[in-house]
Amino acid sequence: MALIWSDREATVAGRFTTNAARAAPVMVSQEVVRGGKSRGAIVNAGNANALTGEAGQRDALEMQRRCADRLGVAPHLVAVASTGVIGVLMPMEQIREGIDRLAEWAKGGSVLAALPAAEAILTTDTRPKTASLQVRLSQGEVRIGAIAKGAGMIHPQMATMLVFITTDAAIAPAELDALLGEATDASFHGLSVDGDMSTNDTVLLWANGASGVGLARADDRQSFQAALTRLARHLARQVAADGEGARHLITVRLSGARTVEDARLKARAVVRSNLVKAAVYGQDANWGRVLAAVGSAGEPWDPEKASLFMNGLALFRRGRPEPFDEEVARQLMGSWEVVFEVELGEGTASAEAWGCDLTEGYVDINAHYRS
Amino acid sequence: MALIWSDREATVAGRFTTNAARAAPVMVSQEVVRGGKSRGAIVNAGNANALTGEAGQRDALEMQRRCADRLGVAPHLVAVASTGVIGVLMPMEQIREGIDRLAEWAKGGSVLAALPAAEAILTTDTRPKTASLQVRLSQGEVRIGAIAKGAGMIHPQMATMLVFITTDAAIAPAELDALLGEATDASFHGLSVDGDMSTNDTVLLWANGASGVGLARADDRQSFQAALTRLARHLARQVAADGEGARHLITVRLSGARTVEDARLKARAVVRSNLVKAAVYGQDANWGRVLAAVGSAGEPWDPEKASLFMNGLALFRRGRPEPFDEEVARQLMGSWEVVFEVELGEGTASAEAWGCDLTEGYVDINAHYRS
Repeated sequence: MALIWSDREATVAGRFTTNAARAAPVMVSQEVVRGGKSRGAIVNAGNANALTGEAGQRDALEMQRRCADRLGVAPHLVAVASTGVIGVLMPMEQIREGIDRLAEWAKGGSVLAALPAAEAILTTDTRPKTASLQVRLSQGEVRIGAIAKGAGMIHPQMATMLVFITTDAAIAPAELDALLGEATDASFHGLSVDGDMSTNDTVLLWANGASGVGLARADDRQSFQAALTRLARHLARQVAADGEGARHLITVRLSGARTVEDARLKARAVVRSNLVKAAVYGQDANWGRVLAAVGSAGEPWDPEKASLFMNGLALFRRGRPEPFDEEVARQLMGSWEVVFEVELGEGTASAEAWGCDLTEGYVDINAHYRS
Repeated sequence: MALIWSDREATVAGRFTTNAARAAPVMVSQEVVRGGKSRGAIVNAGNANALTGEAGQRDALEMQRRCADRLGVAPHLVAVASTGVIGVLMPMEQIREGIDRLAEWAKGGSVLAALPAAEAILTTDTRPKTASLQVRLSQGEVRIGAIAKGAGMIHPQMATMLVFITTDAAIAPAELDALLGEATDASFHGLSVDGDMSTNDTVLLWANGASGVGLARADDRQSFQAALTRLARHLARQVAADGEGARHLITVRLSGARTVEDARLKARAVVRSNLVKAAVYGQDANWGRVLAAVGSAGEPWDPEKASLFMNGLALFRRGRPEPFDEEVARQLMGSWEVVFEVELGEGTASAEAWGCDLTEGYVDINAHYRS
């Protein structure tokens, strides 16, 4: 379990799974975000508290209330997030003990470092995911920090992905929401490990104003947005790279589309494709699968205008297969990151998406372990 | 290679991939179907003739023209279908020889049996797929026969799936098209092996009227539609069961939806889910993944009203996890077919979808072999 806590009230914004079977803690946190103010979140890994009926809702509310009581704040200021197995009731005795212990630490003034918290929320992840940066604004410097988890059930519209971002900038709820929306569209929504959408996806962003610095001018807003998006992309890449069983990070840069929405749909279709993912694992430059995946999503386009590069190597150029050395391609695909650049030649919009290869390891993890 | 040939002109209807990167032979066959009349199709496996530019278009047209010439019919009566690797130019010398040989046989009056033809068009399939049945109509009996191929790149809106259906009933093109559309929606569109949409999907249905029997009455039409749909479903199940690396056929029966379209979207989301597929392979009754997949697609619904059964065993009932014996569940999942029945309790519409489990075998086939 982990507790994310601010020493003062913060504004808060959130993005959540769009799964109709969203988990009880998601409903609780959506309510918190609606209020626009929060002190933090209580988080557990191991049990998703999803599809658990009324008992699950009671448990999520109890987690919220107990955490708030122990820390002396109103319940509606505490968000809740859970990740783990679906359809099993929460082990509430353990959860209560965990909350009490974490609240004691927080009250005692122990600064909860990001790394132990990032480790506490992992499930099938192999490594913790953190990011932080500083942004110079017109009135001073602000910091943004984040932790994330996610390895499976990861797909556009998010994943069992939990992301907690904090900043000491002073930002009103409506503006914070807009900033988070843009950053999420350009990062987590471009992420697919297995095409499966989670019941528990949660991204929360708190701004507690501790720096005394706000977004006074238009270019402050731009600077903050750029930094937030960069941080979110950095986390998204970490999640993709740590996909269950992954040996490669797959990055798709699709340009020349007519709209950004269409570029995103097409880029995501490539990272979602099992055939592309398996080919990357086998280091097989089977580029037809990439363009077939692009063709399966979004608006029609004309292959005659399209080109495709893989780690810089031309595979298809303006509608024609480009002769290439298979052995060179295989060696290029030996690198940890495989980048497909697709140029459609239809317009000026572009998008990026991230995923990982499909290996026997993914099958093994998901066939033989209950997660 | 295979030749499907009618001894007389037939009406023809077709359904094709909606992939923007559709292959050259698909464009040729779409033109044939637009004309409404056909004598048959020339088919090759091994090369998809997709993303091959103008040269590929020339090759597909040459296949059509050469086949028509050798058999003394107009080119626009000959459909073309290809399956195999994308982005490689056709080996036209072999193709020409193949066409000449098949045309000789057909002219010599050799009846081309369905089974050798079904074998000739396989790629990574492990077995040929055929189906036939007879339908008693008001004016007499008609026959419907079919061959199909498909094992990978199989997804709703079809697959590298080639299906050729013939009937000796007499049916006008517009009616034939409607009959095929309904049968396809209720069968091949419910099929997903890997979520990847092919560039070459083709379903063709010829009606050559050799029986002299037409659809004279409304109930004839109903009988024929029912038979055609049954045959198409039978083929769809064969394709799913022979999915690359498959050990289990997965059938999803979703009922209680508000519309058939929504029921189909949700049922297909389950058979597409990598997590569901891996759980079936591992014989793990991890039912939360099934409902999470249902939740990811189509219209919102209320989990409180939903129930889920697996091979008859209740796992979730009206919003509550149902206690069950894990060992019993594991044994039930040992059967070749695993059936998930999802009852939403929102309406009266239902749909079925078919897929297969995700195994190390799928990864091996698609990582290490160029297909």
